[in-house]
Amino acid sequence: MTMSSFVGIILLLIAVEIPGSFQHDRGHSKFRGPQVSQTAGTPWPMPLSYHTQATFTYVDAGEFKFTDVDESSSCSILEEAYNRYFPLIFGRRPETLFFKSSFKAPTDAMTELMVKLEKPCKDTDYPMLESDESYTLDVNGNQAMLSASEIWGVLRGLETFSQIVYQSNDGGFVVNNTQIVDKPRFNHRGMLLDTSRHFISVPILMTNLDAMAQNKFNVFHWHIVDDPSFPYQSEKFPKITNMGAYDPETHVYTQTDIKNIIEYARMRGIRVVPEFDSPGHTSSWGYGQPDLLTKCYTGSQPNGQFGPVNPVPNSTYVFLKSFFTEIAQLFPDHYMHLGGDEVSFACWQSNPEITSFMKKMGYTSYSQIEEYYMQNLLNIVGGLGKGYQIWQEVIDNGAKVRADTVVEVWKAGWEAEMEKVTKLGYKTLLSTCWYLNYISYGSDWMAYYGCEPFNFNGTDAQKQLIQGGETCMWGEYVDGTNVISRLWPRASAVGERLWSAKEINSAFLAQSRLTEHRCRMVRRGFQAEPITGPGFCREEFGGV
Amino acid sequence: MTMSSFVGIILLLIAVEIPGSFQHDRGHSKFRGPQVSQTAGTPWPMPLSYHTQATFTYVDAGEFKFTDVDESSSCSILEEAYNRYFPLIFGRRPETLFFKSSFKAPTDAMTELMVKLEKPCKDTDYPMLESDESYTLDVNGNQAMLSASEIWGVLRGLETFSQIVYQSNDGGFVVNNTQIVDKPRFNHRGMLLDTSRHFISVPILMTNLDAMAQNKFNVFHWHIVDDPSFPYQSEKFPKITNMGAYDPETHVYTQTDIKNIIEYARMRGIRVVPEFDSPGHTSSWGYGQPDLLTKCYTGSQPNGQFGPVNPVPNSTYVFLKSFFTEIAQLFPDHYMHLGGDEVSFACWQSNPEITSFMKKMGYTSYSQIEEYYMQNLLNIVGGLGKGYQIWQEVIDNGAKVRADTVVEVWKAGWEAEMEKVTKLGYKTLLSTCWYLNYISYGSDWMAYYGCEPFNFNGTDAQKQLIQGGETCMWGEYVDGTNVISRLWPRASAVGERLWSAKEINSAFLAQSRLTEHRCRMVRRGFQAEPITGPGFCREEFGGV
Repeated sequence: MTMSSFVGIILLLIAVEIPGSFQHDRGHSKFRGPQVSQTAGTPWPMPLSYHTQATFTYVDAGEFKFTDVDESSSCSILEEAYNRYFPLIFGRRPETLFFKSSFKAPTDAMTELMVKLEKPCKDTDYPMLESDESYTLDVNGNQAMLSASEIWGVLRGLETFSQIVYQSNDGGFVVNNTQIVDKPRFNHRGMLLDTSRHFISVPILMTNLDAMAQNKFNVFHWHIVDDPSFPYQSEKFPKITNMGAYDPETHVYTQTDIKNIIEYARMRGIRVVPEFDSPGHTSSWGYGQPDLLTKCYTGSQPNGQFGPVNPVPNSTYVFLKSFFTEIAQLFPDHYMHLGGDEVSFACWQSNPEITSFMKKMGYTSYSQIEEYYMQNLLNIVGGLGKGYQIWQEVIDNGAKVRADTVVEVWKAGWEAEMEKVTKLGYKTLLSTCWYLNYISYGSDWMAYYGCEPFNFNGTDAQKQLIQGGETCMWGEYVDGTNVISRLWPRASAVGERLWSAKEINSAFLAQSRLTEHRCRMVRRGFQAEPITGPGFCREEFGGV
Repeated sequence: MTMSSFVGIILLLIAVEIPGSFQHDRGHSKFRGPQVSQTAGTPWPMPLSYHTQATFTYVDAGEFKFTDVDESSSCSILEEAYNRYFPLIFGRRPETLFFKSSFKAPTDAMTELMVKLEKPCKDTDYPMLESDESYTLDVNGNQAMLSASEIWGVLRGLETFSQIVYQSNDGGFVVNNTQIVDKPRFNHRGMLLDTSRHFISVPILMTNLDAMAQNKFNVFHWHIVDDPSFPYQSEKFPKITNMGAYDPETHVYTQTDIKNIIEYARMRGIRVVPEFDSPGHTSSWGYGQPDLLTKCYTGSQPNGQFGPVNPVPNSTYVFLKSFFTEIAQLFPDHYMHLGGDEVSFACWQSNPEITSFMKKMGYTSYSQIEEYYMQNLLNIVGGLGKGYQIWQEVIDNGAKVRADTVVEVWKAGWEAEMEKVTKLGYKTLLSTCWYLNYISYGSDWMAYYGCEPFNFNGTDAQKQLIQGGETCMWGEYVDGTNVISRLWPRASAVGERLWSAKEINSAFLAQSRLTEHRCRMVRRGFQAEPITGPGFCREEFGGV
């Protein structure tokens, strides 16, 4: 822990109340007033170095503007960010925002945030795993300066600035004297959404991208298709969509929808990594592409059921090359997630074509044929110039992958797996701890908060390979009705674990900041649910 | 089981798919398409007797109207219901509703529902525990007739009619030939919301009342105040609100708010039973009414903490009489919930005034002083002409209560408690099984559905005393952001248990109807979450 972050922690501690002991059968906490108090104007996630003093300055909402130190280094990403952050700071809803319109900012109030971008940005810039998101933010009296090397750092700093400005009881906006030097601990801070088990509309995906940006997530892992439905509208293979989507007219993502989502994410410094999982989890692909899946047999006859992609015929790889070429052209990210998880061998075992192919190849185990399939797929995608992200099973089964492959660890026993995968020299992500679809009663965010990706046996070089992690919201019980409230602010706990220093790991110290952060999200229009016990937000969702 | 309901079940069975076995670590079900199919135009909760045939008639949305058989028996409750049900049947959103505007209903389409109300209603009618909610509904070709004795039965029948009309694939609205004879199994089908731990705005409470009516709930148990906050705006004791509410300007229910909520509920045949829980759960009362609560002692000195209401001084009862007189005048329902649960004796034990009072009265246990308090409170409220509903502890502690008292059983071991309370001759409600605040992963509604209030040892006379039950949503982790999606359709399972025949108890048979019902609620604008695994609604929340 650096001295500077230590100062921040001391300040926070003062704002924390001791939570009540839970008692009685009902589990009610006996508490007058909120169970956890709220901080005012503290950022989430916690910056690497955060100094703040009790001295504050008014911010003049009427006069305020963002000022480029060097206009020639700006681009549309930055200009749009300014437009976005103005209402995020000062509120969209003057009729409900706790906002005394009679408040007149003093003449020495802050009227601008100076923004210094060292490396000029271009309108077409797209974020990468290696992007630099560091920034510094200095607020001194009515002077405020945000500096960053890359546009992505400016975006993160604007978010932080928007969080440290808060409304005081006289109705005025204020900001404390603050010095921040910040950069993420991990480069990959992802969220998986599953749009196959339930469809999630484009506007809700965009709302979630806003929430992600405000929690400094930077990868939308889009698990777009799976067994139940195939909402991706393919140009080359429209039949797969027409027969595999829940409804081919309404429950689909068109190429335009996808471009809009990628653009929306890009403007917020979020990469979109699409996952087309195979060879398992592909039931929905089969109806529109008849010979793709393995026919399952009962005795000597096909029984009408289908298993994973059939790894034997050449037609499979012709299809995959054509299909993934389309995907590679549509999605600009360097990485593509190729799945490879949970392949059931039962159907392969029943199929005589597979059995004879196994013999021909001298394979003694079905994981070898899985490896054969994955190796072919990886070669195809690698040939398209793309890197890939894969679930841990691909490595467990011994496939050879490109050096820049990112392996995602998701199974229980992740510590041993992380040790193994990093020993093999691969970049690694952790998601085991952060399956937010599994809900439980109470403050479950504390367990997400407590999961530390470095807690495995490994050398410093191995630890260096940890790129971060992903929180996953599988779609069995989630759709547009509840995905936002179930994700937020539970996912915020993961956001801080992935952004902030390892030492920022006390849920007890975090809860007052998280309570403020939750209310900030509510004020900004998100259905962020209460997760720290009884309490209230100055502005509530649905009125007040 | 009657023969008639048996016919309905057979029809439903056909629409049910076998759910997939869950496999793999992630718990994903491997399924192409929805895990559970949906019925079309079946009602929830299941009527007592439900015959339906495959023969259907078109309903002409453009010409359709509700027709009173005898206009002189109508009243504003009925007229407003007609206005409400038209868009519930035909949709509010032509741009998103699956609605082919080019569809032209045939000339022999249904154009009216005849409504026969035997007992004329009055504009001021208010529902009661004893209200008659029975109705019959007969659809034969293009003729449809709804008959009921009381307005409350008409409301229930209109809801059922609105559910059996559905949209066919050609875009037309259709209704199957159907004969329904229906009445609730239980007269009291309640839902508790807690507005003290988190505030819930008036618009969201009203949205929830709509959802309740559409699930045939008829009691809103409003747990309005508790330890954390006191949002009830008292006219006689404004200081309690000013000091006890989270925010006395925004986080309060004014007398007008409450009247509006009662009126909104009344129009939907829903009673509003307010709960002002005492002597425990009253921390928030104490700041604005300084001598009300017991001072807790450490040794011989007050330690600054407060316990339950102080049962000793006369001033306590002067206050209670004045306060509950205001409540009795504001809330028209015959019943008032007086709480009486979870009284902690620790503070009373520490207080010398209580100790000497105990001696004076010859009490040997603190439950006797609790009984003393409750007895006084019950006498006060009884003197105001009101009946009361209480938590089980009041009876467990031996208080004498009025013969019309309704005892609410909420603790584990409810079977023995129900046996005991009914043996004492009291009307009884069950809520133990239906604490919806306790969430868990997956289809938890099946357990709610399986809980049978008659499953205790008792005579028929004892069973007759069961008035129904209540589902409870305590507010630790719920506010306007998530209360609707967390309640619905999980609470629908309780709604069917309380309305439908005891024999309608197979969650397996229910799931296709519940899946349709969930999508119907989504189409009507509710954030009703998915609870039967992967699938979709023709119209989704947030688009499509």
